[in-house]
Order: sequence, then C-alpha cells, then structure tokens
Amino acid sequence: MQKLPKAVRQLVEKFERLPGIGPRSAQRLVFYLLHNPTTELEDFADKLLALKRDTVMCAKCHNVAESNPCSICADANRQTNSICVVEQPLDLLALEKSGRYHGLYHVLHGSIAPLNNIGPDQLYLRDLLKRLGGVTELILATNPTMEGEATALYIKEMITTSNLSNKDQIAITRIGHGLPIGADIEYADGVTLARALEGRRQI
Amino acid sequence: MQKLPKAVRQLVEKFERLPGIGPRSAQRLVFYLLHNPTTELEDFADKLLALKRDTVMCAKCHNVAESNPCSICADANRQTNSICVVEQPLDLLALEKSGRYHGLYHVLHGSIAPLNNIGPDQLYLRDLLKRLGGVTELILATNPTMEGEATALYIKEMITTSNLSNKDQIAITRIGHGLPIGADIEYADGVTLARALEGRRQI
Repeated sequence: MQKLPKAVRQLVEKFERLPGIGPRSAQRLVFYLLHNPTTELEDFADKLLALKRDTVMCAKCHNVAESNPCSICADANRQTNSICVVEQPLDLLALEKSGRYHGLYHVLHGSIAPLNNIGPDQLYLRDLLKRLGGVTELILATNPTMEGEATALYIKEMITTSNLSNKDQIAITRIGHGLPIGADIEYADGVTLARALEGRRQI
Repeated sequence: MQKLPKAVRQLVEKFERLPGIGPRSAQRLVFYLLHNPTTELEDFADKLLALKRDTVMCAKCHNVAESNPCSICADANRQTNSICVVEQPLDLLALEKSGRYHGLYHVLHGSIAPLNNIGPDQLYLRDLLKRLGGVTELILATNPTMEGEATALYIKEMITTSNLSNKDQIAITRIGHGLPIGADIEYADGVTLARALEGRRQI
C-alpha cells in the first residue's frame, strides 16, 4: 500500500497531538500547508520557536506575559486589594475583555482534578497565600464545573485554616452563576436555573 | 485592556489561517503548546520546515512523494494501461487503501471551479493527454460534487476532441455513485438514490 511521505506523516503526527485535531483534520491541515510557499512555513516555524522564547510567566500572578512582572501586576492604576483567581490565562483575558474588573489576578494553570492526578501541589495555589497581605477581596472565578467548584472550595478552606493575620478581613466571593445574557429560560438546564434562583437580586 | 503577548498573538494568527480553525480554537492550541517543553516546539518547527524540503511532486502523476518518479509510478508491478484521475493526494491515498486498484494515478490538485478562478490551466490537466499513449482505461475519480462532475466532463471532452491516435481505444469511466456501504436508504438524499437506481447491477 502506498504510504504518505515521511515528512508529511511526521507533521501529521504533530498536528494530531493537538487538542481537538483528529487524524483526518491533521492530514487536511498538512496538505493545506503543502500548497503554501516555503517562506510561509518558515514563518510558522519561527513563530513556534518564539512562543516560549519571547514569553515569560509573571512571578506574581503566573499569567503568561511579555515581561515579569506582567503589565497588570506592574500597572499602578490597578486595585491591589483585590485578587481574582482564574484557572487559565484565557479566563483572565475574557474577564479583562468584560472591562469590569480593575484588581489583580492569580492564574492557577488548571483546577484540582484527582482523576487526572492534578492535586493542589500541581497548581500555583500555595503562593496565593503569600499574596493575601493587604487584600480585602478574593474573587474565585474558577469554572462552574466539578473541578472548578472543588478548587474554589479548597481555596476557601486553605485560607480559613491558614495562620494569615488578616484572613478575617478578606471577603471571599464566588463569581455569580445563573443564566447567561441572551439565553432562553425554556432551554436552560435545571442546575443553572437553580443557581439563577439562588442568586436572584432585588431590582 | 490586557492583550495577549505578541509571541502568543502571532502564533494564534498562524493557526487561524489554517482551514477549519477559528480564533477560539487557535488560542486554545497556542496555550496548549505553551505547556509543552521547548524541545517539543523545536521538533514541531523542524517538521514544518521538513515538509516541503523532504517531499517532491512526482513529475508523472503529480502525487506528493519522497522520490521522483513516485513509488507508484516506479513500481513495475502496477498496470500501466490504466490511469485513475483524482483531485487530491488524499483521494489517491483513500483509493490505495481500498486495495482494489493496481494501475497508475494522475493527481489534478483541484477541480475546475470558475467561482474560485480555477480553470483547466490551474490544474495538472494538459499533461494528462501526454500520458495516454498505450492507456486502455481512464477512471475519472473526481469528487461527486458540481466541480468534480464538471472536471470529469471536461476531461472526457478534452480527450474526445484531441488528436490522440488511440483515443477510441481508451475506455473512459466514471467512478460508481450510489449508497455508501452501511448507509440507510431511509435517510439517503434523492440525488444519491437516483444515482443508485441508475447504477443498479444484476446479481
């Protein structure tokens, strides 16, 4: 049987390893790239090499950034008494896009997931405690999933059982759950509706 | 507003240009790659550079291959009196996997699509004529789409109006259309069913 050329096969394997890309999509992508000029492929390769070389992790909030500390941690206009905990850098980006948060962040780079062998020590959790001096609000913006909820609860426990001198002055809040804007009550799932009722507010 | 680091943004742009990958998937892929070791990214970049460097187009059949002529054209065991015309190298691969064809191929690298400005001259069509000496069967295995059908008809016309001395000895066939194996007649579309009836065979 005729096989694909080795160079094609090896690049297909690389694409296959990416999340959400199956063997068929990987083949399509590689044959698409074959029709591109060599300079385009060189440019793609350059950008891949630049990815880790030109980014750093902010030592304070663990966001992926161009500088350390990152532009948010270094920004004198941000409220330093508020920290918002998120799972991933993309979550931080989504919150920034909302334009309604002006405090600092803390990126965990994951959530507690025992089934995947991810415990508290595999996340940037412990050094969150060191950042809480002077903080008056901690917003837990982990995802509304099993893992995200467990992580939020773990963080609350970690703080209340810690020996932080100001732990009673920190308002620990969970990001609001309910119906997303534009959603249809008719099609909403029961858990979301229950949360929306629990979180009802006077207008 | 906080923006993504430049290195991240530029790689996201590269992934976005690939077919079937939107802005959100591209971001996910790049952040996934950020968690990979640098050696893995270097390897990915290497494979990208190798793609065009280590593959050639077979001058006879225009398949993407490691050698010129490709392993099929160079194989003395293949029937040289039969040529199967396909749109893309992946179509050739699919036919090879079926294990039922032992002749040669001709890869057009596309189909006639006037809406996309792809005419006969943008495809490897003309030099098909030069390969037809001694050929007794030409199988047109372009896709069963508007463009594929138009291309098949164009090839038939091109041969019948040519001044090839053996053009009357070439059986020009179109690959069979009908119900795919495992399909449900109930859910088949009308055009496919019409083709399946037209193509009925005695058992």
